Amino acid sequence: MDERVREHAETLVDWSARIEEGDDVVVTVDEGAHDLAVAVAEALGERGANQTTVYSSEEVQRAYLRAHDGEFDEDSIHELSLYENADSVLSLVGGRNTAATADVPGERTQRYDRARQDISEARLATDWVKTVHPTRALAQQAGMAYEEYADFVYDATLRDWESLAEEMGQLKEILDDGEEVRIVNEGTDLTMSIDGRTAVNSAASVAYDSHNLPSGEVFTAPYGTDGVITFDVPMTIRGRDVRDVRLTFEDGVVVDWEAGQGEAVVDEVIQTDEGSKRLGELGIGMNRGIDRPTGRILFDEKMAGTVHLALGRAYDANLPEGEGGNDSAVHVDLITDMTGESRLEVDGEVIQRDGVFRWEDGFEA
Amino acid sequence: MDERVREHAETLVDWSARIEEGDDVVVTVDEGAHDLAVAVAEALGERGANQTTVYSSEEVQRAYLRAHDGEFDEDSIHELSLYENADSVLSLVGGRNTAATADVPGERTQRYDRARQDISEARLATDWVKTVHPTRALAQQAGMAYEEYADFVYDATLRDWESLAEEMGQLKEILDDGEEVRIVNEGTDLTMSIDGRTAVNSAASVAYDSHNLPSGEVFTAPYGTDGVITFDVPMTIRGRDVRDVRLTFEDGVVVDWEAGQGEAVVDEVIQTDEGSKRLGELGIGMNRGIDRPTGRILFDEKMAGTVHLALGRAYDANLPEGEGGNDSAVHVDLITDMTGESRLEVDGEVIQRDGVFRWEDGFEA
Repeated sequence: MDERVREHAETLVDWSARIEEGDDVVVTVDEGAHDLAVAVAEALGERGANQTTVYSSEEVQRAYLRAHDGEFDEDSIHELSLYENADSVLSLVGGRNTAATADVPGERTQRYDRARQDISEARLATDWVKTVHPTRALAQQAGMAYEEYADFVYDATLRDWESLAEEMGQLKEILDDGEEVRIVNEGTDLTMSIDGRTAVNSAASVAYDSHNLPSGEVFTAPYGTDGVITFDVPMTIRGRDVRDVRLTFEDGVVVDWEAGQGEAVVDEVIQTDEGSKRLGELGIGMNRGIDRPTGRILFDEKMAGTVHLALGRAYDANLPEGEGGNDSAVHVDLITDMTGESRLEVDGEVIQRDGVFRWEDGFEA
Repeated sequence: MDERVREHAETLVDWSARIEEGDDVVVTVDEGAHDLAVAVAEALGERGANQTTVYSSEEVQRAYLRAHDGEFDEDSIHELSLYENADSVLSLVGGRNTAATADVPGERTQRYDRARQDISEARLATDWVKTVHPTRALAQQAGMAYEEYADFVYDATLRDWESLAEEMGQLKEILDDGEEVRIVNEGTDLTMSIDGRTAVNSAASVAYDSHNLPSGEVFTAPYGTDGVITFDVPMTIRGRDVRDVRLTFEDGVVVDWEAGQGEAVVDEVIQTDEGSKRLGELGIGMNRGIDRPTGRILFDEKMAGTVHLALGRAYDANLPEGEGGNDSAVHVDLITDMTGESRLEVDGEVIQRDGVFRWEDGFEA
């Protein structure tokens, strides 16, 4: 086994999920993520945690969804109780074909997601962490050779997380103190309120309310969004390629949208429910191990020099204790590249220009 | 997809597990059983059942067990509740290396099994069915080419189950009315009581208290076993080859044992607990689609012309309502070939001689 797989598993179990003896852990294993599942099992065994492995196959999912009449039972009790009784959920993303669910009608997937909202919430209530094991399908999606992609994944994942957490703390402080964020970029002039919201220093650990490995972003839950934004970083949503999505907001709600490619899936997402027309997240990428988009949101949104917004569900960690944020069955991220002529302002002050933060070398005020 | 995979899935879901709309189903997917999992998902989707897929990888299991210190928590609640709340469990056996757990200390596996007895019982309390998807590793274990093995599996599995059920009903009647069984074979003269026990007509369906696909055996729960038996059909137990096991019983308990090969794993099994020294099952194979041993108990024990005995746990279906039978953390089958000079007697009457039942052509009374 590539020694980095073992290191990845240990980072996941120790730094990210903070697994301790006796923890009840669900490990969800995608097709192609087998080797990481073996390394994770070894790490969980060493720590004396209790593991159950779930098979998370998109081909199985596709077959089920296509065959079903679409009248899904809500939150079947066996699966719900598995997650309700779990301390942690470790999702090992892999996959052997990123288009594996491309012929599932989007409306079917929407209904399925809606019927499983309690299951989804039960998962999110655990110390969940999602990570990626390099597969050939993901390498292909990223336009990279397999070995090149594996290097990319481990560069992004096996970082000095403590020191990155410290740097990201600076941005968190600015956002926590701020009231309004403005994003200006080509085809973009958007303002949103963040007053009263708490930013998450997403340092790839549940100890930081951060649930992705790799991470390396600071995010909060905006509201009252107004203006226009263009997302120029290529995306794959539900197995379909999406390019140049342009959203227009009024009073926090999407009132107009178009896409250069993949508009049908954007329609589906936006029309899921009331919450899918509002933002659940504003995120700012800070992971310098991620140097290019790969069509995989878990990496792309963390890329240093990008900003992303998510339609749909907000994370509780960004909200005042006990307050509900934007609610939705979906959470779909879209990314804009800030390394061109752009600026990110908080309360009128430029905190990033052309992708460079104000505490970095080369920043022009 | 091979059309037989789809037919297999439909037989499993409809004939075997009797899945209905709204059933909560756990599907456990071994490494290499992916294609069958896809076909099963399609069948479950069509019937409107709710499925959760568990990844059942022996390599994951090996890594976990070897890394663990052996002080296992009992019946972790997340996994227990998954099975307690399931209506059916469909286990898709596959595997890419039948020796995948060969270097796990047997004592570690025993402790793990003991710590999970409630989980095991919760699974057995569902409408569970275990079946086999042909993989190259299983073909190798059987000493067959892959295509040859696939033909073998589907010949054994895709049968006219209703008509076999009718034939097996005759043997069930004899055993239900009988008090004592005697097995005489080369190196074998064994008697056991079956008085008050109910035989199961194992027609590969939960409707017949039968939980294997393929099946094709009639089994009951014997007690008070006395004598000697030699099991000459080659077996693989916990990844290790076992040959020519010879057991000596007194008053229902194994008092002496030896094996031509694999004695260490036989020791482990017998010394698991009190119940592992007694028989939990007497089974008589009647599936003529199975024409040779393959090292896989699910097939071998159903082979027409064989008899098998299991050390360990008895099945409730064989016992009078409310009565507990032999209890153990294990249930390990051993098989003897009756097609040589042999006879099977019930209350002194020969019901099978040299592998031929008394209602079959060629039977010599």
